[in-house]
Amino acid sequence: MLPSMVEALLRGEGAVQRRALAKAITLLESTLPDHRAQADELLTALLPHSGKSLRIGISGVPGVGKSTFIETLGLHLIGLGHRVAVLAVDPSSSVSGGSILGDKTRMEKLSVNERAFIRPSPSSGTLGGVAEKTRETMLICEAAGYDIVIVETVGVGQSETAVAGMTDMFVLMQLPNAGDDLQAIKKGVMELADLVVINKADIDEDAATRARAQITSALRIFSQQGRALVWAPKVIQLSALQGDGVQRFWDEVLAFRNSQQAAGELAARRQHQALAWMWERIETGLKQAFREDAQVKALLPGLVKDVEQGRIAASTAARRLLDAQGNTLNNATNNVPNIV
Amino acid sequence: MLPSMVEALLRGEGAVQRRALAKAITLLESTLPDHRAQADELLTALLPHSGKSLRIGISGVPGVGKSTFIETLGLHLIGLGHRVAVLAVDPSSSVSGGSILGDKTRMEKLSVNERAFIRPSPSSGTLGGVAEKTRETMLICEAAGYDIVIVETVGVGQSETAVAGMTDMFVLMQLPNAGDDLQAIKKGVMELADLVVINKADIDEDAATRARAQITSALRIFSQQGRALVWAPKVIQLSALQGDGVQRFWDEVLAFRNSQQAAGELAARRQHQALAWMWERIETGLKQAFREDAQVKALLPGLVKDVEQGRIAASTAARRLLDAQGNTLNNATNNVPNIV
Repeated sequence: MLPSMVEALLRGEGAVQRRALAKAITLLESTLPDHRAQADELLTALLPHSGKSLRIGISGVPGVGKSTFIETLGLHLIGLGHRVAVLAVDPSSSVSGGSILGDKTRMEKLSVNERAFIRPSPSSGTLGGVAEKTRETMLICEAAGYDIVIVETVGVGQSETAVAGMTDMFVLMQLPNAGDDLQAIKKGVMELADLVVINKADIDEDAATRARAQITSALRIFSQQGRALVWAPKVIQLSALQGDGVQRFWDEVLAFRNSQQAAGELAARRQHQALAWMWERIETGLKQAFREDAQVKALLPGLVKDVEQGRIAASTAARRLLDAQGNTLNNATNNVPNIV
Repeated sequence: MLPSMVEALLRGEGAVQRRALAKAITLLESTLPDHRAQADELLTALLPHSGKSLRIGISGVPGVGKSTFIETLGLHLIGLGHRVAVLAVDPSSSVSGGSILGDKTRMEKLSVNERAFIRPSPSSGTLGGVAEKTRETMLICEAAGYDIVIVETVGVGQSETAVAGMTDMFVLMQLPNAGDDLQAIKKGVMELADLVVINKADIDEDAATRARAQITSALRIFSQQGRALVWAPKVIQLSALQGDGVQRFWDEVLAFRNSQQAAGELAARRQHQALAWMWERIETGLKQAFREDAQVKALLPGLVKDVEQGRIAASTAARRLLDAQGNTLNNATNNVPNIV
């Protein structure tokens, strides 16, 4: 069945492709081992056809106007001949029942457009799990010919880092008020941003201008250190509600893409992201296997109590648990004379 | 031999105890499995006698004047009747040969005082490893009767977080110039601080006053969210070189300690730290065992290349490697109908 699904994804038209896309994503999100094996096969088959989109991450607190902006932007891009996929990473959605994109009515016009594909956040618990499904869904959308992928996230925990780690360009949407920028600096989100958009700039132009100056100087300080920059992150003001500034936004995105591509940064970023993703999944898998180990399960509650009550050093407890799972740590055996 | 070492540490005088302390730390830092087992035994024996010190973390960039300040503070505290241990966490010391505290001449008077114990950073590579040795050394110093433990660190990588995670109070030393505070905010260090000290305030009083106002407002923004605060982090100015402000610093430390103790925060913080430390060591151990697994070693280079060149999805590669190590992940086996 897999070959026909691959065929429908790569070359199917309209409803045929859309149905295959939905099926493929359901397969990815399944936790059945059999399905997981099929999903891996599917991904491997589609991988050579993926990667041809521009991947844009958009983050901002609730109320900043992400949905309005993405709808306006999406329709604008479709008008330019693109096909647009909108995905979301919202690790809180399993609790809240899907706060972002759960309700397609928030992007009324875009959601019914046949050149758009909107998918709410998977609701499978941990951020790592949610991010993994979204990354895989992105690859499948690309194979199906969507050449712009927008990944939306609210600022929950480390979700911005996850989204910046799967996109070519990370856009931070800010409100024009003081303090918003300090929060972003503090959370380490500001330094992820390739572009900062001050939305609702029409409401208080003075505040927007002040915010822009502050953010610009903050970005300058952070970019002095660290990576040699081909691109100096920019700050623009717009009003998504009034449709003002969307073309300017897109010009900035293309300028970014071109400068990165010319410098070979785009390919390097994706390669780096893929390896980081692999290690992230390995770490998660190791911790999961550890917690599910029968010996560990038997010892853990008692050792936690011992550590809490100061009966055993935390590092001693850690070593006992690792031994219990059968991790044979290969200690360096240099010739140290007997000390005690 | 262990009982005599314990005896010398707990009740030995002068040079006898000092020699036992040096031996115990060498034992902790040994990588021989036998030594490690003895070290765990030693820690477990000493643990009931540890924990009775005030643990103070002090961080700041090179040049901020940490050594001068710690020497002045240490001598002041010895004058008040305390015994002072000064440890360091410097993950770069294995490369640089010990940039902080490597040279005891930097604390000339304190290092020769018999009521002080100064130990340079262990130079065993990773931050986690360095931090673990320092934590264990701290416990042993406490058992030996040092009632003030100062842990110094420079701002290398995540070392501030490691030090804040092993101390009762975290002090950030800043220079009186703009930008220094934004750096600290960005790195997430500002929010760790229980007290911010602006040193060298005598050099440029205006700048110091401005910096103090900026940091105070930043601290206010960050403390509004998150933890219910018993203690609002403070900012003080001083000049370590002129010995000015050391008593005021100590008054702030005691005020902090008292407010935390009254609220039960001190014990809660230590319990939380111990468990976090246990999990940190477990994660490190799991990753180490994974990387040293023969099957993983055989597959890893090929899979890394496949991921880099886009021949296999990163998550697929991660699953293959986990399987290779024999991690039997217990996938939830709910009844999902066949999709493909």
